[in-house]
Amino acid sequence: MTTHCALIARAFGASEMYYCGNEDDKLISTINKINNSWGGEFTLRYVSKWRPLLKKYKKENYFVILCTMYGENIPNLESQLRKKFKTSNILIVIGSEKIPSELFDFTDINIAISNQPHSEVAALAIILDRIYGGKQLKFNFKNSKIDIIPKKKGKKAVYSL
Amino acid sequence: MTTHCALIARAFGASEMYYCGNEDDKLISTINKINNSWGGEFTLRYVSKWRPLLKKYKKENYFVILCTMYGENIPNLESQLRKKFKTSNILIVIGSEKIPSELFDFTDINIAISNQPHSEVAALAIILDRIYGGKQLKFNFKNSKIDIIPKKKGKKAVYSL
Repeated sequence: MTTHCALIARAFGASEMYYCGNEDDKLISTINKINNSWGGEFTLRYVSKWRPLLKKYKKENYFVILCTMYGENIPNLESQLRKKFKTSNILIVIGSEKIPSELFDFTDINIAISNQPHSEVAALAIILDRIYGGKQLKFNFKNSKIDIIPKKKGKKAVYSL
Repeated sequence: MTTHCALIARAFGASEMYYCGNEDDKLISTINKINNSWGGEFTLRYVSKWRPLLKKYKKENYFVILCTMYGENIPNLESQLRKKFKTSNILIVIGSEKIPSELFDFTDINIAISNQPHSEVAALAIILDRIYGGKQLKFNFKNSKIDIIPKKKGKKAVYSL
């Protein structure tokens, strides 16, 4: 699941991602291989504790978004999100089912992607989609070795080795 | 991963989902519990073989969408998707990394959610989001026992038992 979160964070324009819980060297190496082939400058890092990280970003005036199904539904927040993105750096906090309630002390807003049980991968995708207004789907990734030639049927890619 | 796909299919307005691969009774019971608490009529079913299923839906004139990173990028297809949705039933095919190339024979179009490596959960979310034009985020689910009262901080829900 963390791999999928990292893939979508990278593909949808996040510059970096931190994960905590169990450290997984394979995960970092998977993402490094993806960067090496597909380009861009996305970084994934492990942190053992989330509190110091959130304190640091709050201190640096990041707008910190918590994403849970209990939050305000995103359709009501889209214009606010786009405005914030023009003036602030943004940190998005996602997690698995049980979010420690202390997290609310470190976050500026709690956003739901519908108020139904959903998936943090999809939630991250929709938040980034709304922040970028869909433009993330067309981002170019610098120094890529593989580029897909989109096709309605079949697979085609250019490899520059 | 299949659980996350089912959760987002349900939350984002799909009426049913089929999965193949390893059968998992726990998965079906998880989704039934979600339906029981959160309402709606979404169904999840296991099929051992995907070919007969796709043949059936093709025969019934469903518009069959395959979702891979090799497809045409979704920003170019959004108006076409919304038009199709007005006149046809839609079947979306998602899978893990290696898609059997035979699938292209059963599908009408191959759609990419960016031409970068991504996640099938996020891809499903974005396709349904574009088909419904964001309205899926506000769907009501009939006969729910739990309803969230959205809050910018904290958690609040109403339980009708």
